[in-house]
Amino acid sequence: MKIAIMGFGVVGSGVGEVVTKNQEMLVKKCGEPIEIAHILDLRDFPDSELKCFTKDFNDILNDDEVGVVVETMGGINPAYDFTKKLLLAGKQVITSNKELVATHGTELLQIARERNLNYLFEASVGGGIPIIRPMYSCLTAGEATDVFGILNGTTNYILTQMFQCGESFESALKAAQQKGYAEADPTADVEGFDTCRKIAILAALAFGKAIDYKKVSTEGITKISAEDVAYADKLGYSIKLIGHCKKLEDGVYAGVFPAFVPKGNPLAGINDVFNGIIVKGDDLGDVMFYGRGAGKLPTANAVVADVVDAIKHQNVNIVIKWDEHKDENQSQGDSLAYAYYVRFSGVAPANVPGCSVVAFSESSENEFAVLTEPKNKKQIDGFVNSLEGCKPISIMRII
Amino acid sequence: MKIAIMGFGVVGSGVGEVVTKNQEMLVKKCGEPIEIAHILDLRDFPDSELKCFTKDFNDILNDDEVGVVVETMGGINPAYDFTKKLLLAGKQVITSNKELVATHGTELLQIARERNLNYLFEASVGGGIPIIRPMYSCLTAGEATDVFGILNGTTNYILTQMFQCGESFESALKAAQQKGYAEADPTADVEGFDTCRKIAILAALAFGKAIDYKKVSTEGITKISAEDVAYADKLGYSIKLIGHCKKLEDGVYAGVFPAFVPKGNPLAGINDVFNGIIVKGDDLGDVMFYGRGAGKLPTANAVVADVVDAIKHQNVNIVIKWDEHKDENQSQGDSLAYAYYVRFSGVAPANVPGCSVVAFSESSENEFAVLTEPKNKKQIDGFVNSLEGCKPISIMRII
Repeated sequence: MKIAIMGFGVVGSGVGEVVTKNQEMLVKKCGEPIEIAHILDLRDFPDSELKCFTKDFNDILNDDEVGVVVETMGGINPAYDFTKKLLLAGKQVITSNKELVATHGTELLQIARERNLNYLFEASVGGGIPIIRPMYSCLTAGEATDVFGILNGTTNYILTQMFQCGESFESALKAAQQKGYAEADPTADVEGFDTCRKIAILAALAFGKAIDYKKVSTEGITKISAEDVAYADKLGYSIKLIGHCKKLEDGVYAGVFPAFVPKGNPLAGINDVFNGIIVKGDDLGDVMFYGRGAGKLPTANAVVADVVDAIKHQNVNIVIKWDEHKDENQSQGDSLAYAYYVRFSGVAPANVPGCSVVAFSESSENEFAVLTEPKNKKQIDGFVNSLEGCKPISIMRII
Repeated sequence: MKIAIMGFGVVGSGVGEVVTKNQEMLVKKCGEPIEIAHILDLRDFPDSELKCFTKDFNDILNDDEVGVVVETMGGINPAYDFTKKLLLAGKQVITSNKELVATHGTELLQIARERNLNYLFEASVGGGIPIIRPMYSCLTAGEATDVFGILNGTTNYILTQMFQCGESFESALKAAQQKGYAEADPTADVEGFDTCRKIAILAALAFGKAIDYKKVSTEGITKISAEDVAYADKLGYSIKLIGHCKKLEDGVYAGVFPAFVPKGNPLAGINDVFNGIIVKGDDLGDVMFYGRGAGKLPTANAVVADVVDAIKHQNVNIVIKWDEHKDENQSQGDSLAYAYYVRFSGVAPANVPGCSVVAFSESSENEFAVLTEPKNKKQIDGFVNSLEGCKPISIMRII
């Protein structure tokens, strides 16, 4: 089987490495050898042992012997155009591109389905952690009710630093940048945009309906202060950037927000650059998938496992329930009740109705925090403005 | 598609419930409805809504319309004989029976392979946690180096009780029995026999070669004392019953033993009846699968997910690397070095060579414990008898 790789960056070159190194084992798994016939990249790689580089996409598109193409370019353009052309030409496509899957997954999966091909994307969420395939091939007999995920290693590293070293967000971000865990422009990570695309993908798989990630309410971690961390720690919680999706009466809801996570919840123990995803279901039992959410070789391994699956399923579409997005199927979650942590400036009233805990700051006498009972959006909006003489400083959901 | 269920106990009746309840969803996933045509059980179930009970296995074997049979009988006989006959008759078989898979998996998989059928067993390890399928369909591009698992909920509940309440093994066992987590005869759980079969299955999947579980060195948790727990806690460890398998130069090794697990290891945080499995690989990154390792509906869901997969793969054998067991491929692990916890009676020498920590008991002046550097079997055997005037009381590996 001849394959091609589009995009020879970290993951793409990892795919080249894994396929070359594990050639013998892959023959056993696929029943035939995997040969890399083309690598598309605009850059030159004179030192690479692989010698099949091209700058022309048509070399791949027009090579009838290429049956599977790996897309590790990232971004929407030209990855979308290339992927569509390849599928229409009868080639299977494997991707690690969360952006493209979240944006055009419905259409690309539909094209693959109609042509008995496969468009597979295990590496688009959670790096080397098997999560996508378990969702469409293991958790198939019952319905999930919720998915909660720590889906971004950069923000989890920053939050872990803030907890373990009492650092501010800014200084923890700097440490992450120095370690190479955060990019020079960290916006996509720290503002939750990366998590947003990933939870949109998981929501589509969990509930069978695409959602529009642009309509997912998304809040990052930039406003979390060392004081919030101190309150959380004192009250028995960790703070994690959570992607959450859930099927509600008015449609599928997905949201991204920093949350208080009780220390008994297994997500609370996921530190540093690790990712973890909990799938909850009434009958499924809660299951968690955990591992390093990024990294060249783990992610490349996930891509190559998809390549193996595509080779084993030539002319057989693997059923992935992921129907078209319709606005009326997507909920904004206004009816969904979470408990909240709210930190106020001002003097704490003697009694805050409906709040189980009132904690006083050690550093300032003029502030306090409460943990509320579960409240929907309207209720929490009303609550934060209901305490006379007190102003909300920060507010986070509790999961 | 007509299916049959053999054994209408906890899991078998759960399968009936899941198939009935999720009929509509399953049609979408399989492309056709699933109809339960026969249920084989020697008992009568006059109150069941399902009305297709039989006491005669031939009703299933001879029904040409039955394509998939669920075996939730447990035990070797007659499950082995029935399964073999069904596969030879061209029917696919799904099982939750770890005993049978560990004992005759090689042969039954071979028969299925030769006939383009499937023999699937997701529910045989970890209940509703997807672990078997991820091993053969996700972690396929690279080689695992190790699998570590907490695979038995009963023993994990007992150890958690011992840790959290300072209870003795005997009293924690009683509590587990009262809660229905341990059977009246708890031998299979507390002596590690259940974990032994499960790690044998995982070893076969991880390394592609069956191992003989009867040759797996297996130690249970009955000898762990409240003192051991106190030492572990003080030194920053938890104690867990671990199934471990690893590819060594002289073959595949598997072992079952209670181990000190450092609190930073995610397995240390797995408490109560939960299970967790870590798959380690140089290129895979470490991934962990976590959830409730038992329970009627989660386990039944895992069985039904296998039924769905079998229906989607009619006449297509799903490749599961699991070759024949040969004695020369199985290692006893004598060369494998673990660090150890050793508790001695006697007076601690001023200096114990090669040991990083010496802790003194709070309850007795005449005992102490050490944590050794990694030692292979010969080295640790030599070490425990090397301290003059000191006798080993207990010894556990550190993972």
